[in-house]
Amino acid sequence: MKAVINIGLKEGVLDPAGKAVHHALTSLHFSNVNSVRIAKQIIIDLDENDEQKAKSDLIKMCEELLANTVIENYEIEIVK
Amino acid sequence: MKAVINIGLKEGVLDPAGKAVHHALTSLHFSNVNSVRIAKQIIIDLDENDEQKAKSDLIKMCEELLANTVIENYEIEIVK
Amino acid sequence: MKAVINIGLKEGVLDPAGKAVHHALTSLHFSNVNSVRIAKQIIIDLDENDEQKAKSDLIKMCEELLANTVIENYEIEIVK
Amino acid sequence: MKAVINIGLKEGVLDPAGKAVHHALTSLHFSNVNSVRIAKQIIIDLDENDEQKAKSDLIKMCEELLANTVIENYEIEIVK
Repeated sequence: MKAVINIGLKEGVLDPAGKAVHHALTSLHFSNVNSVRIAKQIIIDLDENDEQKAKSDLIKMCEELLANTVIENYEIEIVK
Repeated sequence: MKAVINIGLKEGVLDPAGKAVHHALTSLHFSNVNSVRIAKQIIIDLDENDEQKAKSDLIKMCEELLANTVIENYEIEIVK
Repeated sequence: MKAVINIGLKEGVLDPAGKAVHHALTSLHFSNVNSVRIAKQIIIDLDENDEQKAKSDLIKMCEELLANTVIENYEIEIVK
Repeated sequence: MKAVINIGLKEGVLDPAGKAVHHALTSLHFSNVNSVRIAKQIIIDLDENDEQKAKSDLIKMCEELLANTVIENYEIEIVK
């Protein structure tokens, strides 16, 4: 089973890396960019057939290790 | 128009950050994890109605700035 | 003139990446690790002879773009 | 004992994040920037009195986990 976890900064938290990319795109004459946010994607190959168990494990992984829940949100998607 | 670009290491390129997360999950007793890969996700809000123009711009952004195409692949998705 | 800027999370801000590396090192039997913090290092080659001007520019770069000063500290070092 | 490990891309390896920051600084009118490289800094607090043992452990950590030695260099410094 493959899971994809997207971890991004919460609304309102400044994102200097996204800002840098935005400015860089502007200086390369991509003038149609309104905003850029950068997130982290963690792709996990999981040896687990029970989807409920997988989801509950993935939530624990995010809460205990992967995300800084003070400033970051996470989204979990089971791909197959 | 919102675009999501996923940029990950090509197959075969070592991913120390993914490896670190894998080991960390193991040491936290998540024994069902086979592998972990870490990718970057860039979310771009684009002021562009022409989807073809948007795609062609996004490809140029990846090639010229966002991805290191020697070691990374990118995938572009227009969300809305 | 070369400048090195170190940007790290402030004391008290959680560092999931550092935590992941710590757990990973433990699971690889490096049992003598007390803690791990991960920071970003930005190395800038600057065409500037006036060291005072360089420092004031570098501070502006950090404040305006490079650091998220709500959660990150920065340190600037002029190398040569 | 505190150790600081700097991990950066080898000469010649493209650095899209550094390039993005460079462009961003230019678009913010910092015209005196010649180049920008981004590195990772890992700060490890180590419970180890023997400096030789510490160094040999830190080299193993870099080789086995922290660095992708195909594209990255690392430097180890014992701070105290």
